[in-house]
Amino acid sequence: MPSFLHRDPDRLLPADPRTRDIARDLYARVADRPIISPHGHVPVQWIAEDINFTDPTDLLVTHDHYVTRLLHASGVELSSLGLGGHEADPRQVWRIFAQHWHLFAGTASGYWIEDELSQVLGITAELSSDNADVIYDEISEKLGRPEYSVGALFQRFGIEVLATTDDPLDSLAEHAALAQSGFPARVLPTFRPDRYLDPDAPDFVKNLEELVSACGQATTYHGYLRSLEARREHFRAHGAVSTDHGVEEPATFDVDDAAAEQLFTRVLAGEADSQERRVFRGHMLTQMARMSVEDGMVMTVHAGVLRNHSTETFQQFGPDTGHDIPVRTDFVTGMRPLLQKYGLHRDFHCVLFAVDETVYSREIAPLGGFYPSVYIGAPWWFLDAPDAIARFRSATTETAGFSRGSGFIDDTRAFMSIPARHDAARRCDAAFLARLVAEGRIPQHRAEAIIDDSVEAQPKRVFKL
Amino acid sequence: MPSFLHRDPDRLLPADPRTRDIARDLYARVADRPIISPHGHVPVQWIAEDINFTDPTDLLVTHDHYVTRLLHASGVELSSLGLGGHEADPRQVWRIFAQHWHLFAGTASGYWIEDELSQVLGITAELSSDNADVIYDEISEKLGRPEYSVGALFQRFGIEVLATTDDPLDSLAEHAALAQSGFPARVLPTFRPDRYLDPDAPDFVKNLEELVSACGQATTYHGYLRSLEARREHFRAHGAVSTDHGVEEPATFDVDDAAAEQLFTRVLAGEADSQERRVFRGHMLTQMARMSVEDGMVMTVHAGVLRNHSTETFQQFGPDTGHDIPVRTDFVTGMRPLLQKYGLHRDFHCVLFAVDETVYSREIAPLGGFYPSVYIGAPWWFLDAPDAIARFRSATTETAGFSRGSGFIDDTRAFMSIPARHDAARRCDAAFLARLVAEGRIPQHRAEAIIDDSVEAQPKRVFKL
Amino acid sequence: MPSFLHRDPDRLLPADPRTRDIARDLYARVADRPIISPHGHVPVQWIAEDINFTDPTDLLVTHDHYVTRLLHASGVELSSLGLGGHEADPRQVWRIFAQHWHLFAGTASGYWIEDELSQVLGITAELSSDNADVIYDEISEKLGRPEYSVGALFQRFGIEVLATTDDPLDSLAEHAALAQSGFPARVLPTFRPDRYLDPDAPDFVKNLEELVSACGQATTYHGYLRSLEARREHFRAHGAVSTDHGVEEPATFDVDDAAAEQLFTRVLAGEADSQERRVFRGHMLTQMARMSVEDGMVMTVHAGVLRNHSTETFQQFGPDTGHDIPVRTDFVTGMRPLLQKYGLHRDFHCVLFAVDETVYSREIAPLGGFYPSVYIGAPWWFLDAPDAIARFRSATTETAGFSRGSGFIDDTRAFMSIPARHDAARRCDAAFLARLVAEGRIPQHRAEAIIDDSVEAQPKRVFKL
Repeated sequence: MPSFLHRDPDRLLPADPRTRDIARDLYARVADRPIISPHGHVPVQWIAEDINFTDPTDLLVTHDHYVTRLLHASGVELSSLGLGGHEADPRQVWRIFAQHWHLFAGTASGYWIEDELSQVLGITAELSSDNADVIYDEISEKLGRPEYSVGALFQRFGIEVLATTDDPLDSLAEHAALAQSGFPARVLPTFRPDRYLDPDAPDFVKNLEELVSACGQATTYHGYLRSLEARREHFRAHGAVSTDHGVEEPATFDVDDAAAEQLFTRVLAGEADSQERRVFRGHMLTQMARMSVEDGMVMTVHAGVLRNHSTETFQQFGPDTGHDIPVRTDFVTGMRPLLQKYGLHRDFHCVLFAVDETVYSREIAPLGGFYPSVYIGAPWWFLDAPDAIARFRSATTETAGFSRGSGFIDDTRAFMSIPARHDAARRCDAAFLARLVAEGRIPQHRAEAIIDDSVEAQPKRVFKL
Repeated sequence: MPSFLHRDPDRLLPADPRTRDIARDLYARVADRPIISPHGHVPVQWIAEDINFTDPTDLLVTHDHYVTRLLHASGVELSSLGLGGHEADPRQVWRIFAQHWHLFAGTASGYWIEDELSQVLGITAELSSDNADVIYDEISEKLGRPEYSVGALFQRFGIEVLATTDDPLDSLAEHAALAQSGFPARVLPTFRPDRYLDPDAPDFVKNLEELVSACGQATTYHGYLRSLEARREHFRAHGAVSTDHGVEEPATFDVDDAAAEQLFTRVLAGEADSQERRVFRGHMLTQMARMSVEDGMVMTVHAGVLRNHSTETFQQFGPDTGHDIPVRTDFVTGMRPLLQKYGLHRDFHCVLFAVDETVYSREIAPLGGFYPSVYIGAPWWFLDAPDAIARFRSATTETAGFSRGSGFIDDTRAFMSIPARHDAARRCDAAFLARLVAEGRIPQHRAEAIIDDSVEAQPKRVFKL
Repeated sequence: MPSFLHRDPDRLLPADPRTRDIARDLYARVADRPIISPHGHVPVQWIAEDINFTDPTDLLVTHDHYVTRLLHASGVELSSLGLGGHEADPRQVWRIFAQHWHLFAGTASGYWIEDELSQVLGITAELSSDNADVIYDEISEKLGRPEYSVGALFQRFGIEVLATTDDPLDSLAEHAALAQSGFPARVLPTFRPDRYLDPDAPDFVKNLEELVSACGQATTYHGYLRSLEARREHFRAHGAVSTDHGVEEPATFDVDDAAAEQLFTRVLAGEADSQERRVFRGHMLTQMARMSVEDGMVMTVHAGVLRNHSTETFQQFGPDTGHDIPVRTDFVTGMRPLLQKYGLHRDFHCVLFAVDETVYSREIAPLGGFYPSVYIGAPWWFLDAPDAIARFRSATTETAGFSRGSGFIDDTRAFMSIPARHDAARRCDAAFLARLVAEGRIPQHRAEAIIDDSVEAQPKRVFKL
């Protein structure tokens, strides 16, 4: 049985030899191009403070709910992994992970972690119970070295642009400091206002009051809008290019000012029923679009996720613990009020991300193939995986071509996985394009132009970088 | 960089050499077989008057909302393309198109247009800003020649049957004239009564009054039914074999005569609420099925499209301007009342076309695999594309085999694209069948019989030609 | 034209030579491993009485609604096939079947029947009208031999475990007798209580009264629960490991005892409206989960089927006559109340089976990748077919890996098809795994471990065998 970590240089490329040859050439064009990451969740502090990760468990297990969720499904208690404030010896957690490592075969997480272990950390043995401790020690030792600090890796990974995701009330001082420090890449904040827009968010009224108070506004509908505008302006001034919206359903509404004021009052007083809160939430998405038209920020919508499916797990371990589950999504009627109002604006960019694959061919590609404002969000979350990417390309390209896509986003907090994710996306795109070439559907030179565009010009164009 | 238009003789066939060999042989059997086109939108006038297209823009851009929509998404104003009655120099529009030609790489439209340019118009250079004028002149010159008239192309394309789509009040005089003229192919009208059946259609009451008036009937429910029957009879007399129904949801109802009369009265008086109008609309679909059972006309249902998503665009540029967007569709409960009543009739043919791909394996194949009346409509519109056709075949065949399909329909107004579309469908079917042979799932001789059947006997059987 | 039945030893393996080589090796590891069939519909009587099938029609046509449905769609009257108590000469039915045999090309049924004919019955000629009688006679003769009795075939097929599906009031005497007889395999009953849980089931109140009466309980909510518990215990004592639930929608509810009692009373009195009946039904599913937590029985949910779509056919020919049609399914919100209450229980196993493919990547894989209780049901019914299995693997593996799957279930009453179905599933899994190996995504030794696990340890683990 092979004892070395399997890392085929042709990994993810199609098996058919002729198609593989084409794909290999396409991939080679972009393999080493810089990384543009216009949406993700790496904390700016890690970069600003140039931290080193403390140990392999901190690096690869604890904070990755892709990983902890599958361990949990397989019978591992989240508490034993150190979640929810529970004490857990990192080495012991690592052993648990190593013991279950085979469960990740064929998953996106497994693929990325293998890349991280081999390409970034230089681990050539396949992880198992037997070598868990040895590998733990080897990684731990490396993580302490200067060349494994976040800043050093940032350069080694070739990251040219990295967007973080931030609370509207964040001072962005670390972004500012980083920009002034001569850090050789752009690290941009992203305005993520969900908790100030959704009446059903925990502590919504308190959040909102803090917002208007911080902006020196009155707690009125107009004070609220002015505050949001002011914070967007603050983000713009710190280099932000986009706002991000995570919603269970992409339902938008557009009510007139008087009705909006009334709704605002009822929501604040706790008198709004569930449909009124839904309208308020959807109206505020349309207001975000209005502000985007005014200030030029790109609007990204990540829709279709029911958060915290297990209340017991949420109460014990908090959010982001692996039980956010996709639900059926309707962009066509849901986004219509917003698009009716702003969809034809030339300079408005609205990127639609889905975790319900059925919308690719039915909704998002047709919308993106007509509205100049609508961009087709790349596969995200569970769908950021080789076969899912192939399905995405297949489902959207024939209707909308390649130009209406957002370019790849890694959407990750797992800093170490960023090159693996971008590399995998490039390989998958090469594989898809190679098939089109092999099937005589596009000429080779066109495939080359498309893949070249996809890794740099396209994300810069869509995200106005 | 290659400067000649890429047209691989093996295009759309699978890359794997052995499978490709099988596919090539299957395709060769049907490549040159006549075209049966039982559903489409070519105006009969073009054929009756044997027109020549005026210029490449008229031919390939202006009337093709697949093309104008993607240009629009990419920032081109529809007005600058001459839509909505705006003046636009055809040569200038062509230059815009040429400049954006690369956007169509990988799309169905791009594939067809390449076929049209190379196979029909003999253009061997790849379109670009540089050669836009040269190609414009070359095509223009050709279009003026007698051998590029619609009639001449009709024969060159080998079209044996072509169905048009017509208003129930159309006199069909041109169809009659054409039939009498000795034109060497069948050009059949299709009865498309949406605007007389849907209370939410623009000017519905006016349309209905014109209908009953033209038929010498009173404006009563029974006069209305008699009028529809009379016009169907008129169509039958002119060779029509099918009626076509474009609906946002395939919801059918079956109410008794008394209730239908009441509903009719309320609808006409503008008193029916939205659910009553929905019931009326769905009841009239069931009435259409009843008439089909009586007069033998095939009923085709194109369901699941929200028309004119952008009201602003609709108001400025009219319908069919690229923003009809698919929506989630439910055939199982929606079609049930109709199928409960007429689904088991041996001689009733009801072809279900979807643009929500999820219904293929979940709904349409299971319905078509039981009801003798239900036929599985071929991929249509956004789904009439190589990968989408492969998904369709994969999703329906294992449940319902090949015999329950409708045969290919091109559904197009773009006359010049007809051979490209039928050729692409034949290649895709060859590719799918070849995979089944290569995987040892069907013998070669069966694949041959299936593809032979698919291009002629099958559409003739399903559409009673 | 070839006259011998086509049975490629590499059937269902990928065409690409390198991938096929890998797949062939993987398949060879498991091709001859025993069959574990933890869910199906073979009547225990057939085994207990060691019956011989009377003729090929009885064996392959009459009882297989996959087969009769497609014949019906193609214009054959169900009555002429002997359904609904109609007289039909088996030889004549066989001739009809043979005449339509080509319709099954590319279907799952066609594939299995070919395997049955060639691998089990030794028929080497391809069925046709010409040889229908000869083949009829040949099969008939064989079916009478001792080596074609169900018991003999059971051993020849290598079935180690076979679960039947049984009514909760079944005495299970045949299971007991079989177990005592020294029959060399496990034949287990399965508790299928739908008709005692669903107020909309025919004769629900009568069923329920028979249940409580048989258990010596009062017709109260608690007597009802005690009765169900008692019958489960009876099943457990006879070796049952699972309960099975066939529902149109997987909607669960959890109401408190007082509310449940009230609901029970209203349901029994026929006073419950449709929403109350829905809540009752969904509450009882949650009660089934509660009992599973208590008694350890695995709960399987087969959801998303609208039964008896054609009322006329149902009235004339009864249920299971080919017009149960899948509908859109929502497991995420539907199963939530049940999972909120019992989803985190370590020893609770809940296997979710879908016929709406859209839920694979959107719902079931994400749920199965988090909840330790949720297992991803293998493709079932219309989806138990090579391409559908490939889609299933592709849609679920990247999110949840292989370990969260249920293992294959054949879900069949067609005893003779059991080896064909398991063999096909093994080939499809080998094909999928081989692609992952060929694309450098998992090492060969991991693929070997996964396929080895899948045929034995996995179903035994999931079904607690």
